[in-house]
Amino acid sequence: MSVIVQKYGGSSVGTIEKIKKVAQSVIKKHEAGNSMVVVVSAMGDTTDELIALAKQVTDNPDRRELDALLSTGEMISSSLLAMALKAMGHDAISYSAYQIGIKTSGQYGKSLIDDIDGTKIRERLQEGKIVIVAGFQGINDEGDITTLGRGGSDTTAVAIAVKLNGSCEIYTDVDGIYSVDPRKYSAAKKLKEIDYEEMLELASLGAQVMHSRSIELGQKYSIPIYVGLSNSDIEGTVIREVKNMNMESKPVTGLATSDEDVAITVQNISNDINVLSNLFEDVASKRINIDMISQTAPVNGTVNISFTIPKDDLKECLDIVSLYSEGKNIIIDEDITKFSIVGIGMKTTSGVAAKMFKLFSRNDILVKMITTSEIRITCAIRQEDKLKAINIMASEFEL
Amino acid sequence: MSVIVQKYGGSSVGTIEKIKKVAQSVIKKHEAGNSMVVVVSAMGDTTDELIALAKQVTDNPDRRELDALLSTGEMISSSLLAMALKAMGHDAISYSAYQIGIKTSGQYGKSLIDDIDGTKIRERLQEGKIVIVAGFQGINDEGDITTLGRGGSDTTAVAIAVKLNGSCEIYTDVDGIYSVDPRKYSAAKKLKEIDYEEMLELASLGAQVMHSRSIELGQKYSIPIYVGLSNSDIEGTVIREVKNMNMESKPVTGLATSDEDVAITVQNISNDINVLSNLFEDVASKRINIDMISQTAPVNGTVNISFTIPKDDLKECLDIVSLYSEGKNIIIDEDITKFSIVGIGMKTTSGVAAKMFKLFSRNDILVKMITTSEIRITCAIRQEDKLKAINIMASEFEL
Repeated sequence: MSVIVQKYGGSSVGTIEKIKKVAQSVIKKHEAGNSMVVVVSAMGDTTDELIALAKQVTDNPDRRELDALLSTGEMISSSLLAMALKAMGHDAISYSAYQIGIKTSGQYGKSLIDDIDGTKIRERLQEGKIVIVAGFQGINDEGDITTLGRGGSDTTAVAIAVKLNGSCEIYTDVDGIYSVDPRKYSAAKKLKEIDYEEMLELASLGAQVMHSRSIELGQKYSIPIYVGLSNSDIEGTVIREVKNMNMESKPVTGLATSDEDVAITVQNISNDINVLSNLFEDVASKRINIDMISQTAPVNGTVNISFTIPKDDLKECLDIVSLYSEGKNIIIDEDITKFSIVGIGMKTTSGVAAKMFKLFSRNDILVKMITTSEIRITCAIRQEDKLKAINIMASEFEL
Repeated sequence: MSVIVQKYGGSSVGTIEKIKKVAQSVIKKHEAGNSMVVVVSAMGDTTDELIALAKQVTDNPDRRELDALLSTGEMISSSLLAMALKAMGHDAISYSAYQIGIKTSGQYGKSLIDDIDGTKIRERLQEGKIVIVAGFQGINDEGDITTLGRGGSDTTAVAIAVKLNGSCEIYTDVDGIYSVDPRKYSAAKKLKEIDYEEMLELASLGAQVMHSRSIELGQKYSIPIYVGLSNSDIEGTVIREVKNMNMESKPVTGLATSDEDVAITVQNISNDINVLSNLFEDVASKRINIDMISQTAPVNGTVNISFTIPKDDLKECLDIVSLYSEGKNIIIDEDITKFSIVGIGMKTTSGVAAKMFKLFSRNDILVKMITTSEIRITCAIRQEDKLKAINIMASEFEL
């Protein structure tokens, strides 16, 4: 039994007409002899509409209740898809998270999938049924509904593929993974394949095609993930382990930018490793992702420390930081674009960073902060320099 | 711990503003020292909108999937009400059916509540929380979501009141139970109280204020049910056992009409009790409610048999009937108004039926079929005679 787990994003199921088209695509692969599991997101803007409804109740809706509310969006689209399949004469059944034991832990709105009880899905597949699963949600130990965060349906799909040892196909409104966001750089090239690590870096850096945890999960269990356009024959991109790096490979595979972060600088904070680590621990305990960190050399036992966090978490983060700043100056810089280049080739090619900095300098692009990993270099630059930087780097590294 | 189980209908939670008003009403009784459980229907026309969405997929949506779809309406309103209460500083928690083990059996769309696991609700009430429950739904033995039929949230509320030994309050868009539908007879009188049996007859006869099974359940466990207008001081009606019938009591308490039925007549069917009982069993097995039955005297071993069923079930019913009619004539009469008068007083007052028939005859109102119970007389009349009949009977019996 060859199992295919497909995921269709919100725009792919945005109308009843589109749901019927998805049903036809599913039927095609089912009739070709595959066992089909289909994970769906909420229709179109449903999630945003539900959030807007909650915001009418209160500016700061209770997180447990918000998750319960948002989970209905995927329940609606999954039952409609099952109806469409049955109406087309194909036996199908929809499940929400609690019905197939999608167990989660962690905070509301950002939960992690711990496990999925594959029994029911396997039984239905054995019976020849097409199984539809409401994405984006799970049930925690208290029996509460939790959601997985924006794009979480990707992770639902990969987790089910892992559990059933199937292959995974993510259908969305883009026709694959590009070296650079084509909306920002029209000459961008589509990749036939990309390594998990590269995709992970790109996803976490603002290339919002995929939910990061879905890629981590795919990597951990070696499940190749196909990403492509729904209802189309255009070939997409496969995310997999790219083993055969040949000599000619380019050092840089992709480029990503993000304007979603803000930089916080705390001046003259005590250069005590305990103070700093406590600060970062407290921020992390709220599941606020600190990304870039830089620190000046100590003067009189104090340092200036800067870091970036998602804009949405600014208020919550400042509440914590103010406990540590002892009334000292906190500077907030919202004019931040995180500009990153990513490539497994960087592991074996030296001088990429030097070339990047030289190009920035030569073109009067101010670099505010820098972080690097083995396969990535990220610079915080001014937002006004973003498009110029994309053009320079994409052309230099042939993206 | 005095437990009050309130139920708010769809029009009472139709907008966020109305949900906030409901929250205030709930808080008032909570602050007065009561433990509060609140059952909510879907907001306004949500259920109809979801049905319309399903009908866009297919004319005949799969029943299991339709139930899964419809159940989301109550999940949305219950989480929004819990959010509103929390935002007002009162601890609240919403539950959908599976979270508190509302067990159901029977067909999709018309399921019955078998049991509710009261443990979680009791624990939350002990903690001082206000518990919000999504009405109208339950989980069957297969773990599927099932719905209880139109108005099913009433039954959810009474069932929880039974389980917690609490009192029950049904808030809706009418300010109580009237002897006659005030939209059809403006002089109709509001009742201070009404017996379960009378209410049951009225509810099953088209007075759509309440879900019939909720009244049966209240009667079985002697739970008085208050019915009134939400967010209002106008006194409503209590449904309870009315023991002290005094000599002066009127024989007829209420009057109800319904245009929702259709009469089927099968001509020259074999007068074999097995054939007839098999026919009615087969129809009942599809949970189609046969109401009025009449049969002509046998001629040559065959009879004509007529019965009424809900219009919605006509197609399904005809499929069954045709198996028994042996090609003989089936006559369908859609011009049916079921006209009923109800009153516990009929048990002790004779001549009510005779007076009714005399009035029909004197006013040229054709009576097509008749059925009676101990406390009810129902006649099938032409729809065009409905308003005339209401005026004559309501005035005669002082309703």
